[in-house]
Amino acid sequence: MRPYILISNDDGYAAGGINFLVDVLRAEYDILVVAPEGPRSGFSTAFTSGPPLAVQLVRQEEGLEVYSCSGTPADCVKIALNRYVRRKPDLVVGGINHGDNSSVNSHYSGTIGVVGEAAMQGFPAVAFSLCDHSPNADFTPLRPYVLDMVRRAIEMKMPPFTCWNVNFPLQPTFKGVKICRMAKSRWIKEIVDCPAPRRGSKYYWMAGECEELEPEATDTDRWALAHGYVAVTPTTLDNTDYQQYALLSDCW
Amino acid sequence: MRPYILISNDDGYAAGGINFLVDVLRAEYDILVVAPEGPRSGFSTAFTSGPPLAVQLVRQEEGLEVYSCSGTPADCVKIALNRYVRRKPDLVVGGINHGDNSSVNSHYSGTIGVVGEAAMQGFPAVAFSLCDHSPNADFTPLRPYVLDMVRRAIEMKMPPFTCWNVNFPLQPTFKGVKICRMAKSRWIKEIVDCPAPRRGSKYYWMAGECEELEPEATDTDRWALAHGYVAVTPTTLDNTDYQQYALLSDCW
Repeated sequence: MRPYILISNDDGYAAGGINFLVDVLRAEYDILVVAPEGPRSGFSTAFTSGPPLAVQLVRQEEGLEVYSCSGTPADCVKIALNRYVRRKPDLVVGGINHGDNSSVNSHYSGTIGVVGEAAMQGFPAVAFSLCDHSPNADFTPLRPYVLDMVRRAIEMKMPPFTCWNVNFPLQPTFKGVKICRMAKSRWIKEIVDCPAPRRGSKYYWMAGECEELEPEATDTDRWALAHGYVAVTPTTLDNTDYQQYALLSDCW
Repeated sequence: MRPYILISNDDGYAAGGINFLVDVLRAEYDILVVAPEGPRSGFSTAFTSGPPLAVQLVRQEEGLEVYSCSGTPADCVKIALNRYVRRKPDLVVGGINHGDNSSVNSHYSGTIGVVGEAAMQGFPAVAFSLCDHSPNADFTPLRPYVLDMVRRAIEMKMPPFTCWNVNFPLQPTFKGVKICRMAKSRWIKEIVDCPAPRRGSKYYWMAGECEELEPEATDTDRWALAHGYVAVTPTTLDNTDYQQYALLSDCW
């Protein structure tokens, strides 16, 4: 039996990135897609505690099923693992995201929400992102890397409660792969005033740009991307700060 | 000048928990509240990349301003820090949340989104949560602990890119404070079928319960809560898995 992969994303089931991913992987793997019905960028690991969610079959072929879901990326993974998988998936893949999910972007990303949810449920998981927000982004340079990483992720025993966050720079070829730590950065100029015709409330668009806080460090995902490498950031769902844990335990 | 605290939450500006927090803190601190206009439970660190957000003044008194915002908890913090703070806050506080944010719940929580956003912006931050989902939860036993922890959080130099996740068990008195690591757990029985009058889509409610994966461990937030202690989990925004980082760097 061929290995079985669950795929979701935050750009929606119709996005170019997820369809490229399906095309690349379906030659070797059986695939289930449960992905949002439309864009869910910036949804992080949000889940829906309010209204019921709708799931609809979109496409069914030999070794491939695609469902759209009205919920968040994490909702899609939860529903897929509980109701739509035909057997236990060998891997959960998020993406390919249209846009950079390195550094703090990973905290906002619905694509990272996909693999975070999978990791919390005990599945090995890999998120792919390309540093190009365009709906027409060209994913073809990623093909051999995606195939290689999916193979490695299934063969290696990824520790429970962890996943990989893989980011590709926007260029036609890559210098290679770097294993990275997450760079410290922060978003600035995030608020854009939105003039409104009515008084009473003030209105704002969320926007901004990412400011590097350690541009000299050479072991980060941001450095790798800026220098033409594919950035693989192993990621844990255990967010305990163990340094402070030791400090506070001594002094409280 | 009195220290200045920014407060937000995910239950909305009108919730009991955030109003209790304001009442406890305003005797000693100047306070700005920018909180969601309604419930935003489960919103994680989501931000709004779509429509503009509305912000409205709700309450203005000596040393206290309260604004409601149509966005997510993280949006509230971004807008507050960029547009509404009168000076640099000495601390950002999330909560008090109506419900448990220990273990993996922290990944879904909008209250943790508040302090995560603050930590990414370079501010010390503390999230408070009470293990009681009721809108009428009794927060009075928390008062001395909240005051003590806010004082400590301002006095100690919390390392950049970190925050505290504080959870209170549901009981009239507490045995004390435990510094904890995040327990490993996972959500089960999450999907409830929702019969629908129309064919075409399937509908599901998101629900479930939290299953302990290491019930014997005595150093976790779940253990502390189950044994009557206030659980303080120091939390980092650097989610790099350094163990796997070392392993993969050797073998890739």
